[in-house]
Amino acid sequence: MTENNRLTTLGEFGLIEYIQSQVDPSPFLRLGIGDDCSIQTVGSDEELLTSTDLLIEGVHFNLDWTNFEQLGRKSVAVNVSDIAAMGGTPRSLYLGLAFPATLSLEHLEQFLGGVLSKTKDYGAVLAGGDTCRSTGPLIISVTVQGAAKSGQAICRSGAQPGDLIYVSGTLGDSALVLHSLQNNEQPASELAERHHCPEARTELGRSLADQGLANAMIDISDGLVADLNHILKASDKGAVLSLEHIPLSATFQQACQEQSGLIDLALTWGEDYELLFTASPAAEKEIVLLSEKLKLSLSKIGSVNDGNGLNILQKDGALYQYRQAGFDHFASEAKE
Amino acid sequence: MTENNRLTTLGEFGLIEYIQSQVDPSPFLRLGIGDDCSIQTVGSDEELLTSTDLLIEGVHFNLDWTNFEQLGRKSVAVNVSDIAAMGGTPRSLYLGLAFPATLSLEHLEQFLGGVLSKTKDYGAVLAGGDTCRSTGPLIISVTVQGAAKSGQAICRSGAQPGDLIYVSGTLGDSALVLHSLQNNEQPASELAERHHCPEARTELGRSLADQGLANAMIDISDGLVADLNHILKASDKGAVLSLEHIPLSATFQQACQEQSGLIDLALTWGEDYELLFTASPAAEKEIVLLSEKLKLSLSKIGSVNDGNGLNILQKDGALYQYRQAGFDHFASEAKE
Repeated sequence: MTENNRLTTLGEFGLIEYIQSQVDPSPFLRLGIGDDCSIQTVGSDEELLTSTDLLIEGVHFNLDWTNFEQLGRKSVAVNVSDIAAMGGTPRSLYLGLAFPATLSLEHLEQFLGGVLSKTKDYGAVLAGGDTCRSTGPLIISVTVQGAAKSGQAICRSGAQPGDLIYVSGTLGDSALVLHSLQNNEQPASELAERHHCPEARTELGRSLADQGLANAMIDISDGLVADLNHILKASDKGAVLSLEHIPLSATFQQACQEQSGLIDLALTWGEDYELLFTASPAAEKEIVLLSEKLKLSLSKIGSVNDGNGLNILQKDGALYQYRQAGFDHFASEAKE
Repeated sequence: MTENNRLTTLGEFGLIEYIQSQVDPSPFLRLGIGDDCSIQTVGSDEELLTSTDLLIEGVHFNLDWTNFEQLGRKSVAVNVSDIAAMGGTPRSLYLGLAFPATLSLEHLEQFLGGVLSKTKDYGAVLAGGDTCRSTGPLIISVTVQGAAKSGQAICRSGAQPGDLIYVSGTLGDSALVLHSLQNNEQPASELAERHHCPEARTELGRSLADQGLANAMIDISDGLVADLNHILKASDKGAVLSLEHIPLSATFQQACQEQSGLIDLALTWGEDYELLFTASPAAEKEIVLLSEKLKLSLSKIGSVNDGNGLNILQKDGALYQYRQAGFDHFASEAKE
């Protein structure tokens, strides 16, 4: 019996039972997988946060470059990143999965293993889903729910003139890996995970919300420039960024020296899943302390103003003109 | 400029703004489309209900047989039906949409028109989503959130021995339409909507929960037999159904006279989105009153017992053996 046949024998309901058996109980989930809906409680001092993402083979990922376990973990992380970007705590995930008949039960088990372990890492549980066969590509839909103390969630619209702009970690590493893969080069091994399995910055997001340190926040999925522009548009403000302060890993800096223009990947490509936030200068000291506590760099890269544009300045004060490498699903080709 | 070009010009962010402009405010939604997450309140005496569905071209629908406005409405209705099946009130929807480049802006507008009007019909709002290009089929992912008074949601697991089994409306109409389409016949026009745009029985579900009338409930998506078996398995009970009491429309009855065996479509095909529930005999009078109030037939089709199987009896008491026409996504071919 081939593995595909084993999956066929397992059937849709058998698959649901298999997944069900892998999930731990949660204090917030009265009823999880196996009924028409999950039943969940939300604290009376809490608000519910929800976000949904689609990941499609050939558009968002390439099965030649990623393994199924990584793909499972990435599917969770990029979705949970939206909860982090509001300063919330992830609670539950819902997985829609359309699996092509060309893939095996082993692939499915690896994928689910990645999904379940990463969901657990973030303190959440798989609470529901829908499975079917795909006649085309592998299709993954993930919806995440989380909670924030009432009124504490950090929106895109709160940036104030004079706010400093911060970003966590380093930018462009995921883009650099993909750039190598697309050029049939071996990507830098120390950066590979940044692309194949990024981390959602949940602890940072929640700490910023708890301490009331950030006025506006977003996670960098579309690229620093596009995502900062989302904040500026929602807040009706402008900003100036300092090119030399954009945080880059040692490997990325090395690559920039070998090939000019690569810096634009860090500015416009996206898929970094770092948090970009604005904060009053009065919060600077606490942000430094938080950075030390979390052992995560929080770089000051610019400031918000009353204008309506985004300018990126070089060290000598000259305006930097980047080339757009960002991604608009309806205007450009697939990333991978 | 072709319509495809217009959609390309609109871009992903333009599309999101277009959708945003079509959505009315909701008292439960503090922040809707346009940030990393929606922000929602859930009453302190309420529990949150959530369900997710994937609909994929070639698996769940065929664009030769449905128009985009119907498809939009159906995508909402089949998902909201899961909230109805718990006795809840739908509040918000999240739409994941991967749109093939071969489809036009007009198609997209028709689809969104259907989604938005149906969401409004059910008293809910579109609160978030994700859009991208599909390199393969049209892919629709819908997640719905609703609320039920704490402890009132009706699960699959509550069926009691002696409970009467009820089903709303008529069964098999959707299957009959599809049967005609698959055989290149003109489907009965009075049944077409049952297939292309079924109704979620939200009022019935909520009333049963409010009045505490049902012990177990499910919506019929996989077929009467499969869905009753879900209740029986979750409740660890058995049941007997009376074949002659299965509610059939006049058109379906006529078709049964012309072609023997069609009754199995009503038993095993699914996509009826009627509610199947079990209730104590003591609730019979109130259920009759509710049926009259809602102008919706509620047929008594059998009873729950302490056994562990499901038997369907003919008028003469003989066991009826049906042929399985139901749908298991991992064990059979696509319905359409």
